[in-house]
Amino acid sequence: MNSRPSPVRFTLETRDGQARAGWLDTPHGRVATPCFMAVATLGGLKGVTVQQAEELGQGVLLGNTYHLALRPGAETVRALGGLHTFTGWRGPTLTDSGGYQVFSLAANRTISESGVKFRNHLDGGLLDLTPEESIRIQRTLGADIIMAFDECPPSDAERSVVEAAVGRTARWLERSVAAWRSVGPHGGDQVQALYAIVQGGLHADLRAASTADAIRHDLPGYAVGGLAVGEGAADRNRVLDAVVPLLPSDRPRYLMGVGTPLDLVEAIARGIDQFDCVLPTRMGRHGIAYTDVGPLRLKRAEHARDPQPIDADTPSQAARVSRGYLHHLLKTGEHLGGTLLSLHNLAYYQRLMTRCRTAITSGTFSTFVDDFRRSWPEADDLPTD
Amino acid sequence: MNSRPSPVRFTLETRDGQARAGWLDTPHGRVATPCFMAVATLGGLKGVTVQQAEELGQGVLLGNTYHLALRPGAETVRALGGLHTFTGWRGPTLTDSGGYQVFSLAANRTISESGVKFRNHLDGGLLDLTPEESIRIQRTLGADIIMAFDECPPSDAERSVVEAAVGRTARWLERSVAAWRSVGPHGGDQVQALYAIVQGGLHADLRAASTADAIRHDLPGYAVGGLAVGEGAADRNRVLDAVVPLLPSDRPRYLMGVGTPLDLVEAIARGIDQFDCVLPTRMGRHGIAYTDVGPLRLKRAEHARDPQPIDADTPSQAARVSRGYLHHLLKTGEHLGGTLLSLHNLAYYQRLMTRCRTAITSGTFSTFVDDFRRSWPEADDLPTD
Repeated sequence: MNSRPSPVRFTLETRDGQARAGWLDTPHGRVATPCFMAVATLGGLKGVTVQQAEELGQGVLLGNTYHLALRPGAETVRALGGLHTFTGWRGPTLTDSGGYQVFSLAANRTISESGVKFRNHLDGGLLDLTPEESIRIQRTLGADIIMAFDECPPSDAERSVVEAAVGRTARWLERSVAAWRSVGPHGGDQVQALYAIVQGGLHADLRAASTADAIRHDLPGYAVGGLAVGEGAADRNRVLDAVVPLLPSDRPRYLMGVGTPLDLVEAIARGIDQFDCVLPTRMGRHGIAYTDVGPLRLKRAEHARDPQPIDADTPSQAARVSRGYLHHLLKTGEHLGGTLLSLHNLAYYQRLMTRCRTAITSGTFSTFVDDFRRSWPEADDLPTD
Repeated sequence: MNSRPSPVRFTLETRDGQARAGWLDTPHGRVATPCFMAVATLGGLKGVTVQQAEELGQGVLLGNTYHLALRPGAETVRALGGLHTFTGWRGPTLTDSGGYQVFSLAANRTISESGVKFRNHLDGGLLDLTPEESIRIQRTLGADIIMAFDECPPSDAERSVVEAAVGRTARWLERSVAAWRSVGPHGGDQVQALYAIVQGGLHADLRAASTADAIRHDLPGYAVGGLAVGEGAADRNRVLDAVVPLLPSDRPRYLMGVGTPLDLVEAIARGIDQFDCVLPTRMGRHGIAYTDVGPLRLKRAEHARDPQPIDADTPSQAARVSRGYLHHLLKTGEHLGGTLLSLHNLAYYQRLMTRCRTAITSGTFSTFVDDFRRSWPEADDLPTD
């Protein structure tokens, strides 16, 4: 069916247990995997410039289709040169399908076989998102990697609801693929790569069925969706243990919306290659810095006169100043505090991916995981914004 | 009285009319003049890291004594290594005396010969600022250049009030100088340089008297205060015409709190060497970008699909993106919009200083001023935050 090779190609370099080190080649450059993709919801990282993101080694930038379609609108992004020119980001980009936001943000949702009708969270305007429309918007935005439109049921949904969502996700995937192929072998001149999304909640058999539906289409990549929606780490890891071995080994595997540093390490150990999450920038704005010994809450009084940097091993623009200075900026409401912590957290996540990759290629990943589990604290509640 | 040379030395390189090109040597490096000093009120530029400020050629960083004394407190800044280590800024620094903020922000102000008693603007706590206390706080903060404590009357004050303030400013200067010299020839081990401040409102004779009081002390630098408080540009320029020729030509001249790009060009034409102002970052946060043809209001709908950069001649991290993208960030409330515009404005101000200096050293400054006056629009109202 494909007249030329996929514009996004994954090369597996080495494996250590289930963990993989590889390369993702895209029309906007090569990225080492495992890779963490930073979230630029509205086309900009919160408080962080693209030059700063480049300096700290950021690989892929993710834009949210739902948010960008509302503001400034996909046609405006295209008129301003498409997602890369619009944001100034020269590396690879990815857009989600909008599905997750429709299910988490929009009101008055009506799901039918055709798609989802809903009122948007900004002005309540009525919208109609279908697989075809999601692909059309993503083609207009112009990211390197685009996502199929799926149904993401709530984490506490009954089995019958999850089962129905798996069926619908399969039929919507068929339509997403058709829409993607309709303008050329890879979505037309923009040579975009389409990833499918596996659903199925916490049910191993439904996950297996959804995976079988997805891989039938022989797509450039596969994502695990419907996690990071409130389930515990043990449940999530169990789903990954069931799904990942069913995915083709020569394609990248993307775990959507996950997670904390320990979540990432656990998922890499289970064979995941790509991640996205708002945590580094969101927690940064809340005054929280990630370190190997867990999240550091810099608003706490104990940091007021602490002359140490956040973390001597993570180079970023925050490394030049003390915890005491960051505490001061956060307590006085200076946005610079959130910016510096976001820069630290993004640098920490990038470095974590590099450390995982090095451990995988040197065959020492299981020791790395054990050490990381030991140093990371028991789960504790972080602000959810 | 001085046992060693001043830690801050001005070297006049060349003059073109009244305009001067020179060098300011400090314990933290050399800065070309005319120079614009960016305002880090609480020890951080609003939304801009020190690395970004370095990249765009920022010379001197200014901290506000009043704000830093309240939060985190001067002793905390010292415990965290002093103003340079605290902020991470490696170049020259300056602190004001706190006088201006006491007169503009504090409540329940009681001025006596001793100093000013007032309630601070945060929690209403009672404070007592005297010349000795201002110098002690500034010594604790540890900037390269510190300012004498002066009385800054309102712009609409009666002549008798301004006259009394000039007298008190002279007596407070005497005490500021004594406090500064009491711990060593230049304020102790920190080898700080003290600048005096000239007051006198819009009255040429009072300005002359205040200038005579100031230069008697043979200080490393002199500032013109009590402007940028609501007077018009014509009045301000008249004051500069009266004061600047009375100042010693071998010392730097600092016009406090001024101003727009045109204000700076007019003041340089009258012999001013140093400036500080919150406008580049404050206007940036309001969505306003400075250009040679005046302020550009990027929130306006006309910019929504404009693919041009703000200004092709000003390199900054904002230069990679379009006016349309900046409009989008501002309309959606993304802080990144204000950060990018602040970066542009700081870069624009730095470049304006460089362009003025080049014109002065090549003897073409009067043409530059004429061209700049012609391209800059008539005054219009900008947000005042």
